[in-house]
Amino acid sequence: MASLFITLEGTEGAGKSTLVPIIKEYLESKGRKVLTLREPGGSEICEQIREILVSVNDNEKLCDTAELLLMYASRAQLVENFIKPKLKEGFDIICDRHDLSSIAYQGGGRGISMDKINKVREVSIGDFRPDLTLLLDIDLDIGIERAKARGKLDRFEREAQDFFLRVKNAYLDYAKKHTDLVHIIDAKQDLETVKANVLKVLEEKL
Amino acid sequence: MASLFITLEGTEGAGKSTLVPIIKEYLESKGRKVLTLREPGGSEICEQIREILVSVNDNEKLCDTAELLLMYASRAQLVENFIKPKLKEGFDIICDRHDLSSIAYQGGGRGISMDKINKVREVSIGDFRPDLTLLLDIDLDIGIERAKARGKLDRFEREAQDFFLRVKNAYLDYAKKHTDLVHIIDAKQDLETVKANVLKVLEEKL
Repeated sequence: MASLFITLEGTEGAGKSTLVPIIKEYLESKGRKVLTLREPGGSEICEQIREILVSVNDNEKLCDTAELLLMYASRAQLVENFIKPKLKEGFDIICDRHDLSSIAYQGGGRGISMDKINKVREVSIGDFRPDLTLLLDIDLDIGIERAKARGKLDRFEREAQDFFLRVKNAYLDYAKKHTDLVHIIDAKQDLETVKANVLKVLEEKL
Repeated sequence: MASLFITLEGTEGAGKSTLVPIIKEYLESKGRKVLTLREPGGSEICEQIREILVSVNDNEKLCDTAELLLMYASRAQLVENFIKPKLKEGFDIICDRHDLSSIAYQGGGRGISMDKINKVREVSIGDFRPDLTLLLDIDLDIGIERAKARGKLDRFEREAQDFFLRVKNAYLDYAKKHTDLVHIIDAKQDLETVKANVLKVLEEKL
């Protein structure tokens, strides 16, 4: 029974954090050991990097290139020190955001070229990729309303609608080109339907 | 009168921070406007990144790749938001450590290949380079004694002698291949001699 690295992706308020415990419970019901992580973050050092990335700083704008490099610094650290060793120990890992977020947010959203992203990505994680990515696709209006309901908006959540439209399009473009790796889940449906669709995809993977 | 971007490099305790105000005073005596910075660090966000890089964390080891990406995240941010705009405004900038530190420490010290470093470097700063780099060359024993005398050692200063030997060799290798950009200053001499040698190099550059 090979361990699985499963990542959840999507724009703000798509329901990723709601689904993490549902997927965990499902995998555990099959007798599997499961760990959950989030990116950026997931370890003490990575959470320090996350803080720089998500904090709103009125004195200084984080430039797009530094944002990209910080994302992949956190990712390198998490993959090297936690994800790879824990997969080897036989744990399944569910990660709230991973590599595809950078393609969508730093690529689509910020407009950094895939050539630049691929250079940093190769140095950061080489050819390490998730076994399964679930892309939760949601109408931007619904998602942002959900994010607002959670409380104070972070540096990313404060972006304008056109930023998220570019993120969403980059997500869908990538998913359509990598149908073997990325499953699009219609996340505007009711939770029970979303859950059933997610578990169906997982069942096929086990 | 074009503004100058001058960087100071060298292993621990080589005397960089002693020379920064000396160089600043000299340039100001010639009627120039001068700013001083340090790397990693130099701005609010970059100092947050520095903190992650230099802090000793007994619970979690910062992996070499994340170290490299954090260094170049800080560098991208400083070059984009401070160094380039300030040079345009006519300031000379003296920076305590810059790009060559990554070639010496992450390359020589950690053993990361130049191929990897160059990929990250290109994304981070493109072909932006200092106008003048002064490499303060010091015997490792003397340097470490000086660093210890300054107080508690940071994550880099705690490295073993063989790490610093690789750093020193990488510095000297690079300097010998780029004699147009990097001036080696013998930093084991007394301060007055070092100062005279540094000012001679600067004079030729003005």
